[in-house]
Amino acid sequence: MEKREQLYEGKAKKVYATDDPELVIVDYKDDATAGNGAKKGTIRGKGVVNNKVTNSLMKMLEENGVPTHFVEQLSDRETVVKKVSIVPLEVIVRNVAAGSFTARLGVAEGTRFASPTLEYSYKDDALGDPLINSYHAIALGAATREELDTINAYAFKVNEVLKAYLAKFNIDLIDFKLEFGRLPGGQIVLADEISPDTCRFWDASTGAHLDKDLFRRDLGGEEDAYREVLKRLLGE
Amino acid sequence: MEKREQLYEGKAKKVYATDDPELVIVDYKDDATAGNGAKKGTIRGKGVVNNKVTNSLMKMLEENGVPTHFVEQLSDRETVVKKVSIVPLEVIVRNVAAGSFTARLGVAEGTRFASPTLEYSYKDDALGDPLINSYHAIALGAATREELDTINAYAFKVNEVLKAYLAKFNIDLIDFKLEFGRLPGGQIVLADEISPDTCRFWDASTGAHLDKDLFRRDLGGEEDAYREVLKRLLGE
Repeated sequence: MEKREQLYEGKAKKVYATDDPELVIVDYKDDATAGNGAKKGTIRGKGVVNNKVTNSLMKMLEENGVPTHFVEQLSDRETVVKKVSIVPLEVIVRNVAAGSFTARLGVAEGTRFASPTLEYSYKDDALGDPLINSYHAIALGAATREELDTINAYAFKVNEVLKAYLAKFNIDLIDFKLEFGRLPGGQIVLADEISPDTCRFWDASTGAHLDKDLFRRDLGGEEDAYREVLKRLLGE
Repeated sequence: MEKREQLYEGKAKKVYATDDPELVIVDYKDDATAGNGAKKGTIRGKGVVNNKVTNSLMKMLEENGVPTHFVEQLSDRETVVKKVSIVPLEVIVRNVAAGSFTARLGVAEGTRFASPTLEYSYKDDALGDPLINSYHAIALGAATREELDTINAYAFKVNEVLKAYLAKFNIDLIDFKLEFGRLPGGQIVLADEISPDTCRFWDASTGAHLDKDLFRRDLGGEEDAYREVLKRLLGE
């Protein structure tokens, strides 16, 4: 496996080509942003945590029937994944009301839903990643009805499996954002990452944040919290 | 039928009790608002047009299998309807991109969708009637999954029937907002109104607005446009 030219640099990751056209290398950075890039900073060691936590959870999800883009971890910050065409939707599943949802819909943070909610944000920085529904996603050409049905089924499956898995480490899964991609044959697989950047993890006993809300809300302690997640999940 | 105390005054209608606990009288006003009440004004004759147009379309929809709250027109501005408990959702169906949708999702006004979109706004003035999806509607207790399935089926049926009906009068149905209510037994029926206040009607030949956008956008000519809709649909 040869690492070649950089294909893309996002807010939290770089992506490199390899000598295999079907594989790319993801390189996790310590850069942190919030509010659609309005706030910028660094969480030291974040890239290492997110790389290892994502890979560990993707492997666990594969074993539980959710296909992912994961191939192989190369180093503390680098992982080989299948090259996909990203479906331009952030798929958000919520077990408990938190964050933007609470102000927008007048629900107190911490309100637990009788059943999880699922929503899409249309990935478009210029538009501010607006909330859309399945009819909009289809009208915008973001995905087909069949793809959305698959994505929703995988997203709820991830929630069910991940919630039970994290509970063993005394972590309460509040909500999370997933992204999906299409393989060359069109199959939908889970892509991007599953980490304290993209999930709200609350300590199940104390309710303490173990995620990026510490950075977003200027609460402090984010480096320790990220390390704590790595320690609980991987014993490192 | 005896008209009794006023139960409610909305932006465009008043509702009165009657001596029958299952029936109320709706009284259509000429008051017009836009931007969630930010702009206020009057469209002379609007109440008469909206009352007659709504009743005519509700009757037509009933004949085509969509149950409604309509009972009997009493006068130019007054109509007896079944008393319902309103489902707190604005149900919006779009055939063509227009209005808030265009800026929010970066789609040019006039873009025709391959198939219609449907969305819900949560009826809450303090929150600004936010866009929500079916999972949110259920989590907020606005409706059950079964009610939403019924509502969606009726809304698409209304679109199909109304679009074909209006085409006969050279009117292009761009989009519209519906509200639904529950009868005492729980059955879902179409409620509220179907009028140039709640629909975008474009002249099918010229694209001219025949609806409240003339008022919303300060284009002028709204009184003539409302009268034109009444004339086309009822020959008055």
